[in-house]
Amino acid sequence: MTVTRIPGGVCAPKGFTAAGMHCGVRKNRSKKDIALICCETECSAAAVYTQNKVYGAPITVTRSNISDGKARAVICNSGNANTSNADGVEKAEAMCSLTAKALGIDPKDVIVASTGVIGQSLDLEPIAYGISELPKLLSKDGGEDAALAIMTTDTKVKQISFETEIGGKAVRFGAIAKGSGMIHPNMATMLSFITTDAAISPDMLSKALKAVVDDTYNMISVDGDTSTNDMVSVMASGLAQNPPIEAEGEDFEKFTLALLEIGNYMAPMIAGDGEGATKLLICNVAGASDVKTAKTLARGVIASSLVKSMFFGADANWGRLLCAMGYSGAEFDISKVGISMSSRAGSVKGVENGFCVPFSEEEAKKILSEDKITIDISLGDGEAAATAWGCDLTYEYVKINGDYRT
Amino acid sequence: MTVTRIPGGVCAPKGFTAAGMHCGVRKNRSKKDIALICCETECSAAAVYTQNKVYGAPITVTRSNISDGKARAVICNSGNANTSNADGVEKAEAMCSLTAKALGIDPKDVIVASTGVIGQSLDLEPIAYGISELPKLLSKDGGEDAALAIMTTDTKVKQISFETEIGGKAVRFGAIAKGSGMIHPNMATMLSFITTDAAISPDMLSKALKAVVDDTYNMISVDGDTSTNDMVSVMASGLAQNPPIEAEGEDFEKFTLALLEIGNYMAPMIAGDGEGATKLLICNVAGASDVKTAKTLARGVIASSLVKSMFFGADANWGRLLCAMGYSGAEFDISKVGISMSSRAGSVKGVENGFCVPFSEEEAKKILSEDKITIDISLGDGEAAATAWGCDLTYEYVKINGDYRT
Repeated sequence: MTVTRIPGGVCAPKGFTAAGMHCGVRKNRSKKDIALICCETECSAAAVYTQNKVYGAPITVTRSNISDGKARAVICNSGNANTSNADGVEKAEAMCSLTAKALGIDPKDVIVASTGVIGQSLDLEPIAYGISELPKLLSKDGGEDAALAIMTTDTKVKQISFETEIGGKAVRFGAIAKGSGMIHPNMATMLSFITTDAAISPDMLSKALKAVVDDTYNMISVDGDTSTNDMVSVMASGLAQNPPIEAEGEDFEKFTLALLEIGNYMAPMIAGDGEGATKLLICNVAGASDVKTAKTLARGVIASSLVKSMFFGADANWGRLLCAMGYSGAEFDISKVGISMSSRAGSVKGVENGFCVPFSEEEAKKILSEDKITIDISLGDGEAAATAWGCDLTYEYVKINGDYRT
Repeated sequence: MTVTRIPGGVCAPKGFTAAGMHCGVRKNRSKKDIALICCETECSAAAVYTQNKVYGAPITVTRSNISDGKARAVICNSGNANTSNADGVEKAEAMCSLTAKALGIDPKDVIVASTGVIGQSLDLEPIAYGISELPKLLSKDGGEDAALAIMTTDTKVKQISFETEIGGKAVRFGAIAKGSGMIHPNMATMLSFITTDAAISPDMLSKALKAVVDDTYNMISVDGDTSTNDMVSVMASGLAQNPPIEAEGEDFEKFTLALLEIGNYMAPMIAGDGEGATKLLICNVAGASDVKTAKTLARGVIASSLVKSMFFGADANWGRLLCAMGYSGAEFDISKVGISMSSRAGSVKGVENGFCVPFSEEEAKKILSEDKITIDISLGDGEAAATAWGCDLTYEYVKINGDYRT
């Protein structure tokens, strides 16, 4: 599919405005800590959530609000996850009511999210102040402020926007995301808010989102931990006036590919900006008997602490890659496994037919010293393939997480 | 059961001698790298192995040799895991043949183990030299040398020996172990060689070992990774002349409790000496609906990178404990969860009825700054309990594993 990058982030699609500001949940005044994304019309809406059994109050409230497949706004604070507090649901509902009142919409049309420390009561005073000010700041230029406001230990702003064609109409997509620590496959693993002006039914929107999240956001691993609060949501305003997508077919496929474009952009962005990361790792598994096997292996390799440490040290320890495959839980024929690693600096093969083979240590060191490394695993068991994204494990990760709250 | 600590390690039980020396697998001449444990008579033998699908050649050979429930010697080198090499099985079999020839026993009575780097061909020359010298060094005082020779990045020698009473006879037990990195629950997770002079059938020996490993060695997590090579073996010489244990009953129970004594000693020893660890973490889960749930939760908490990092920083982040429980995969009623943490410095409660409650940060910091910390989780769902052992995640872990091979 052809997409044309355009500016605007979540505000690029017709109907959307956004804003971000510092309201006071965080003490650091230079860090924006509350974001609002708003649509001038009611949107089809869908979301996927963390699979952690301990999930935040915002998840409970958003799940309920979005159950009718409709939404008009996203309100999100950073600095406090509003989770594991006795009054969490009450506070999350208050965030929706305040937002609805400020925008003149229904509280049930608000998607609410929080990210930050777990288990500390959320102070509504700065939140209420922020929600009273944000509507005045809403604009078509507010996408980046919103992206900045949802960041926690992220070091880079994560946003994308582009235009493509669906049903003969120009349709726009935008997205922001936050990632960093506590990111693990097989879950809705961070916060990402997607907007589009495509016309699509809530059911088809949900179906497209689930498929794309499974192949992208859920194939990221930073530390094997899974947050209580993370979600990916999408709102579709319909203002692009394409023939509404209400069933599978060419338009639905195009729509899904557009969401995939977002997922494929955000997954490496999030993985490469993992807490303390110095390197983005991309693991491609090909020749698997089925997609589940390919995904399990790709994620197993990316999630191994020993593998992650070895990349930090640029140490071509092929045995660790085999070892991680072995305890991933996937079934495969070890005697057919081949592994090579590559980067801008070149490519090196270290495993053939399941056994380690001689390789140039010097060349491998050069290749593994780059900041973006691809691990290619071939299985020879079938046609299925998958990709997972991760990062190295560094001193800095330990430092960040040894004293996160202070 | 009453046990009396005695010296001797694996040589304490009647019939056993041991030796350890530097043979040259490792370049560092001051580090012993090959160990031999030998019994003057044929022993009942049993072992449990890594559950990694990629397992070392020594595992293949030992599994075959021990299938008749009999063994007389253990040969083990450190420095090279003899795994993922095309000629691994051939080399492991050669180690058994050389040992058998040197001792005048059957090659099928040799337990062979290797630990170290994966994927580098094992040079038999130093091994052959070592095996030719070791029989001359065998003595009742050789237990510690054997313990030293199997160490890799371990910082402490791990051995235990004691005497107890079974069937009216004094029966002795000894054990050595190596641990450090790549240690994760639910697998035979490191190398440990146990000796006893109890008389017991191979079947009952295997049954007792499996039960004990499940509750002890398999409840350790250092980094969530699982080695390709690890095993726990036990040899029983029968020279204590107790009435042979051939069925369940009081004597079998006593025997199992003696093995449990070893497991309960080695598990915290291994966890607390995890790569780069500065703190031993003990997680007790009580009030679970069943043992499986209790084990899953205890291991889930101990294995979380975020939890491990928080202990390194002595940061009482209760939400991370709840979060780790939530993605452990276990079923439990979050609304009944209570969590407290304790050490020599005192005890602090931070979670009641599933919610975080106020606590003294100052007191918590003092408690978490100790080098041995217990996490007590109560569920209120039933009567089952379990304990898991782990360690903090430190800069040093990353350093050790960033450049393991050089």
